[in-house]
Amino acid sequence: MGKALRSPSGRLLVSGCDVLRVPLTGDCEILREQDITVADGVIESVAPSGVTSSFDGAEVIDGRGLLATPGLVNAHTHSPMVLMRGAAEDVSVEAWFNQRVWPIESNLTADDVALGARLACAEMIGSGVTTFADHYFFPERIAEAVTESGLRADIAPTYFSSRGQEALESSVAFAEGWHGRADGRVTVSLGPHAPYTVDDEDLRTLADHARRLGLRMHIHAAENVEQTESSLRRRGVTPVQVLHETGVLDAGALIAHGCGIGEGDLPLLAAHAERTAVACCPKVYLKHALSPLTPVRALLGAGVTVAVGTDGAAGHNTLDVWEALRLVALTQKQAVGDATWMNVSDTLRLATRGGARALGLGDVVGALEPGMRADIALVDLSGPHCRPLHDERAALVYSVRASDVRTVIVDGRVLMRDRNVLTVDVPAVLAEIDERVGRLLDISHGKAVQHYDP
Amino acid sequence: MGKALRSPSGRLLVSGCDVLRVPLTGDCEILREQDITVADGVIESVAPSGVTSSFDGAEVIDGRGLLATPGLVNAHTHSPMVLMRGAAEDVSVEAWFNQRVWPIESNLTADDVALGARLACAEMIGSGVTTFADHYFFPERIAEAVTESGLRADIAPTYFSSRGQEALESSVAFAEGWHGRADGRVTVSLGPHAPYTVDDEDLRTLADHARRLGLRMHIHAAENVEQTESSLRRRGVTPVQVLHETGVLDAGALIAHGCGIGEGDLPLLAAHAERTAVACCPKVYLKHALSPLTPVRALLGAGVTVAVGTDGAAGHNTLDVWEALRLVALTQKQAVGDATWMNVSDTLRLATRGGARALGLGDVVGALEPGMRADIALVDLSGPHCRPLHDERAALVYSVRASDVRTVIVDGRVLMRDRNVLTVDVPAVLAEIDERVGRLLDISHGKAVQHYDP
Repeated sequence: MGKALRSPSGRLLVSGCDVLRVPLTGDCEILREQDITVADGVIESVAPSGVTSSFDGAEVIDGRGLLATPGLVNAHTHSPMVLMRGAAEDVSVEAWFNQRVWPIESNLTADDVALGARLACAEMIGSGVTTFADHYFFPERIAEAVTESGLRADIAPTYFSSRGQEALESSVAFAEGWHGRADGRVTVSLGPHAPYTVDDEDLRTLADHARRLGLRMHIHAAENVEQTESSLRRRGVTPVQVLHETGVLDAGALIAHGCGIGEGDLPLLAAHAERTAVACCPKVYLKHALSPLTPVRALLGAGVTVAVGTDGAAGHNTLDVWEALRLVALTQKQAVGDATWMNVSDTLRLATRGGARALGLGDVVGALEPGMRADIALVDLSGPHCRPLHDERAALVYSVRASDVRTVIVDGRVLMRDRNVLTVDVPAVLAEIDERVGRLLDISHGKAVQHYDP
Repeated sequence: MGKALRSPSGRLLVSGCDVLRVPLTGDCEILREQDITVADGVIESVAPSGVTSSFDGAEVIDGRGLLATPGLVNAHTHSPMVLMRGAAEDVSVEAWFNQRVWPIESNLTADDVALGARLACAEMIGSGVTTFADHYFFPERIAEAVTESGLRADIAPTYFSSRGQEALESSVAFAEGWHGRADGRVTVSLGPHAPYTVDDEDLRTLADHARRLGLRMHIHAAENVEQTESSLRRRGVTPVQVLHETGVLDAGALIAHGCGIGEGDLPLLAAHAERTAVACCPKVYLKHALSPLTPVRALLGAGVTVAVGTDGAAGHNTLDVWEALRLVALTQKQAVGDATWMNVSDTLRLATRGGARALGLGDVVGALEPGMRADIALVDLSGPHCRPLHDERAALVYSVRASDVRTVIVDGRVLMRDRNVLTVDVPAVLAEIDERVGRLLDISHGKAVQHYDP
């Protein structure tokens, strides 16, 4: 672990880099040989190199030969689940929950979560993710890890109705205590797990708290079409209708997955489009043999924000948003049978501006423009697998590897420089985790945090 | 560029590595802390570390902390198409061929192909691919690049009937001249492009030559279901039936893609299963919005060998077989609606033993066992994105990045050591390619090597 850099002057100059411009609509562009100046965590200017050479007292990052992209946004994950990476393979959704993940999660301690979150932060910094939307237990420990790591995160404390009133109240207390902390890098959403694990009364109560506190909700809903069918069969309404009737959409919801969102749900989502988004995490849908996928074209057509997520690493195996955005492009083209759809610019937009909007941060991050917080990934496209470099956007979507990210900046602070993560002591974290693995995976006790029967 | 190492004694010891054992059927296993000894390019032993410490005069590779896997096999590519990486994005199959790739290919010179092949070899060495099945123009120049690079390849000279008799004869001459050269590392297949670009008479002639020379064929067929439908409409037979009737299956065929292979084709393929295989390259199918995909479950059920390919980088953007095998697992699970299918062991087997069998090299490479040629990738699974390491097989299929491959050995010769490619001067190749890009992509002439109308 080195030292995370923030210049004493609060000024940073990234010099001579190319810049990926991600407009609100239309094609992304490459601005050649730019200087990016940052003061107090905010981008002051993006201008042709040399114009701002008198940016005195600034920490300087030599960006020549690198492409600056907005830091990626991981719009849905359960970061501490890196602890279970590779421990639940080749199983159905039901077996994944009931035979692997929920039994293993009954072993989790607060210290496990703290370590898992720190490893997850290191992995995300190492792959150019600067913001993530988390949903998990022991959220204080995640918030501490985020604070230390220098990342930006929206953290939702996972709540099941089976956990009872005290757990609900502690969710709310976490929100009251943590929202806006770490210089605003930590925000909180309320996190009822799903309409099939949280009853309507609790959804209403949490939605009321969210409105009172000015927060949003982060919830799994219509994860697959079977859940939608089951909800219709058991209750006569879709999961999205449940979110509507309980006030969740009104509070504002980041919906994870939504593969089971139907035509009839679109008007409800569209009516709340300002504060509603859907996070698409295709690797886990394919891995769990789900079909159909998130109806991205229909959602965007209805004006609903779509973002890219990895879900937890117990399903996705990585927290690599480059991998996730590539799969969004590939699977969405196939899903609608149109190779011209979800083009490279639109794909990059989903993983940057889309993710930022999904977390309520659309004016804060997601693009490299004056006034935005300085969340920047410097990517090296000079490797053989990206060459010749006919189109940087295509290289970012279809060729790049997470290991091509050289340097990562959040809020003007350098979190990784030349692939050295500066804010997480990775060897120490890994050593501590390795000691815990045996206990964590021992599910001979037969317990589980919940039972999957949507 | 460093120096490719082959010990003067012809002996190599990879010491202390874990070894991925890929059996013919059943689960892959991890053998802990093994020594692999190699003499004259052949694996002599794989045994617990220390037992063979007196392997005198051997070049030693310290494998501690690394996992030795069989080198991956890229069972279908057009290696020089790395020159067009990222130059044909977000277009339909038809536009990809007719507006981008086939016009660009009319600009290709032999020197372009030589450079493209060298870059492709560097990329594949860098990602742990040790054998590839190529299909392209100017095959001599590819064979020279393979010879120099130290890789193993089966090279098929691409032939269209529109190129005429002389081109056909030069295909055969290439086969006669090159098959078995470079110490056996270069083999040749005959390469009629597809049943829709090569007429039946030429297919018969080439199949006759293949039988005479003891070679196989490498051909695109039933690339998508539309091609099968078109063939049935125009000719009353499927593409696979054409391969049967013209003797291509009898000669032995590596069929690229086969997404349009139907139930009725399976008995024909099964009858020639000893010398017939299908290469599945899912990234390009998704990117071109194709559905259905290669019917892998039906093919394997019929006893037909299935292997993993990247296709050319004008479609796939990388030659990364880790990426390709991951997508085979993900897409095949979804395609058959069964998350327990195409498990991690079966997926790894397709990309190693399956690929070897598909190229007629099933007794030569594809597993790390005494008597096999020593084609080895040493992979580092210690990065945060692979940890904790509950299951190496899952890490290889779902977490690993090409950049985690540290050292690559082919035929007992070290081609990459600690990520330094020793046999290709990558900076020089890239500099030469960059100078050619403008001319290569200029398609204002309106020419094309072929027209796509299957």
